[in-house]
Amino acid sequence: MKPIAVDAMGGDKGPAEVVVGARRAAEELGVAVVLIGRPEEIGDSGGLEVWPATEVIDMGDDPAQGVRRKKDASVVRAAEAVRDGRASAMVSAGNTGAAMASALLRIGRIRGVARPAIATPLPVPGLTPTVLLDAGANTECTAAMLVQFAQMGAAFAAARFAIAEPTVALLSIGEEPTKGTALVKEANALLSRSGCLAGGRFVGNVEGRLLLTDAADVVVTDGFTGNVVLKTLEGGVKVLISALLRVMTSTEEGAAATNSLLPLLLPLQEELDAETYGGAMLLGVDGVCIISHGASSSRAIFNAVGVAHDMVAGGLVERIRSAVTPV
Amino acid sequence: MKPIAVDAMGGDKGPAEVVVGARRAAEELGVAVVLIGRPEEIGDSGGLEVWPATEVIDMGDDPAQGVRRKKDASVVRAAEAVRDGRASAMVSAGNTGAAMASALLRIGRIRGVARPAIATPLPVPGLTPTVLLDAGANTECTAAMLVQFAQMGAAFAAARFAIAEPTVALLSIGEEPTKGTALVKEANALLSRSGCLAGGRFVGNVEGRLLLTDAADVVVTDGFTGNVVLKTLEGGVKVLISALLRVMTSTEEGAAATNSLLPLLLPLQEELDAETYGGAMLLGVDGVCIISHGASSSRAIFNAVGVAHDMVAGGLVERIRSAVTPV
Repeated sequence: MKPIAVDAMGGDKGPAEVVVGARRAAEELGVAVVLIGRPEEIGDSGGLEVWPATEVIDMGDDPAQGVRRKKDASVVRAAEAVRDGRASAMVSAGNTGAAMASALLRIGRIRGVARPAIATPLPVPGLTPTVLLDAGANTECTAAMLVQFAQMGAAFAAARFAIAEPTVALLSIGEEPTKGTALVKEANALLSRSGCLAGGRFVGNVEGRLLLTDAADVVVTDGFTGNVVLKTLEGGVKVLISALLRVMTSTEEGAAATNSLLPLLLPLQEELDAETYGGAMLLGVDGVCIISHGASSSRAIFNAVGVAHDMVAGGLVERIRSAVTPV
Repeated sequence: MKPIAVDAMGGDKGPAEVVVGARRAAEELGVAVVLIGRPEEIGDSGGLEVWPATEVIDMGDDPAQGVRRKKDASVVRAAEAVRDGRASAMVSAGNTGAAMASALLRIGRIRGVARPAIATPLPVPGLTPTVLLDAGANTECTAAMLVQFAQMGAAFAAARFAIAEPTVALLSIGEEPTKGTALVKEANALLSRSGCLAGGRFVGNVEGRLLLTDAADVVVTDGFTGNVVLKTLEGGVKVLISALLRVMTSTEEGAAATNSLLPLLLPLQEELDAETYGGAMLLGVDGVCIISHGASSSRAIFNAVGVAHDMVAGGLVERIRSAVTPV
């Protein structure tokens, strides 16, 4: 397998953090990795090959403009490496929009896919994560797009979590097919037709309260709602955990008791940590593209490289190609 | 003040639970309360006046049909009591749609209000709750509706939480005014015009991750997104707390340590419990109308009656009347 191209310049923590994760993946997982970026900022690559790119698309840059103007940007070069067959997948923790635009403009879409979507695994305690898509690539969607998201999401859940026939639901405000916006009702009708979702099983609408349960393996929504839901959950969990720790350690006895509970709490923390899942997957482009959180630690990059390798080995792109019906 | 009309037949736990909460409110808060429903099912009202209503709109009933056909339904009679000036407010933990339809059809809208909206206080640890609206009354919205929701939400936050000039934000997928759907962008432009939000201050867009912070006192969105977000938070918090308690009590030592932490955890639990806030408020109808959760305990009913009383005393309807500009 060709190496995984890692955008070394992406991520709020700087190249050093990315390099540590990439090196660990190469060493511990035996995955071939190439770093793309400014060699002088990457520093000691620990033996990993470095493909130079002189420009960086920053978090504040306009994604489309950035890709158009900064032709030697690390994330653009990563996408080109996938396009040209020199790399088997790309991983970036940089500007999400720029990673999407690079993949879309350089790698291109799988034939028949109207719009790529971002699929994000939501950690569910004790169970397989729920795949949420679109988590933000397409602010406005049509019902036909949601149908393709369902098809791509099922293919991804099958490849990523080894689910034989993933259950797929539409996010709505009631379980009845008559509940929701015109968009959701139309998508529900389309997905209810037999044969629409080969390889997956449409189970109707689910409410937001069932996202972190086993109600569905894949939950489909438009990119606006999906992004709001994802950030609401991230923010809510963070606020709740902080508040819990604050009150639990507000007395000396409490701090001692909390301390004694840490060995029990840490595995749960790891399970709920988005970094465990490596990042979001851009589905629908003609290559494996992982977009990690800007705040990714080396652990997130390590996991992202591992997932990228597994998705290449598991034939994700081919699975999506077969799953999608033209709009 | 005329009594608060409590729909005794609403709520999954049956009339007895509602009656206990209503009685406690009358006794401990000194609020006049009248129970509306089937006297034989209400049983011992503990001295509270009972106004008979022979019918009940069940959770499974179609709201609009229920209100049209069951003219002697408890929730319909509660709304009529407000309309006729025999009651000063209504509280129902029954079918949400039926409570909305009863209020809308019997009490009617405040002049100039295009569509009433459901405002739900989201508990924020250590801080004043964030008022989220619309939490589900209007699945499809126009920008002009969102502007009125902002105006009504600011008036409500001022009355409910004694905030002099509430900050109001639009829920979106980025802070920049260019981020979000066409609906959000248009509403952002309208709300940014000076004088649009008398009594409140528009602070632009917020992302979902800031909902449970002090980024804004009021967060405005369409009823689809609002309902999805509300249920996502409710479900997420429930799943997280369950998982935490499960791992913390998974060993004998852990169970003992957790037990010793309960005195610290219980106040936080109460603070985060939606029942502390009594329920959602239907803003824009010409009377005070509280819609409590179907699963409401007597404590939720007690708090709902208290809030209803405070909102009547605080002139909520008059505040909204002055805040809203015609669409």
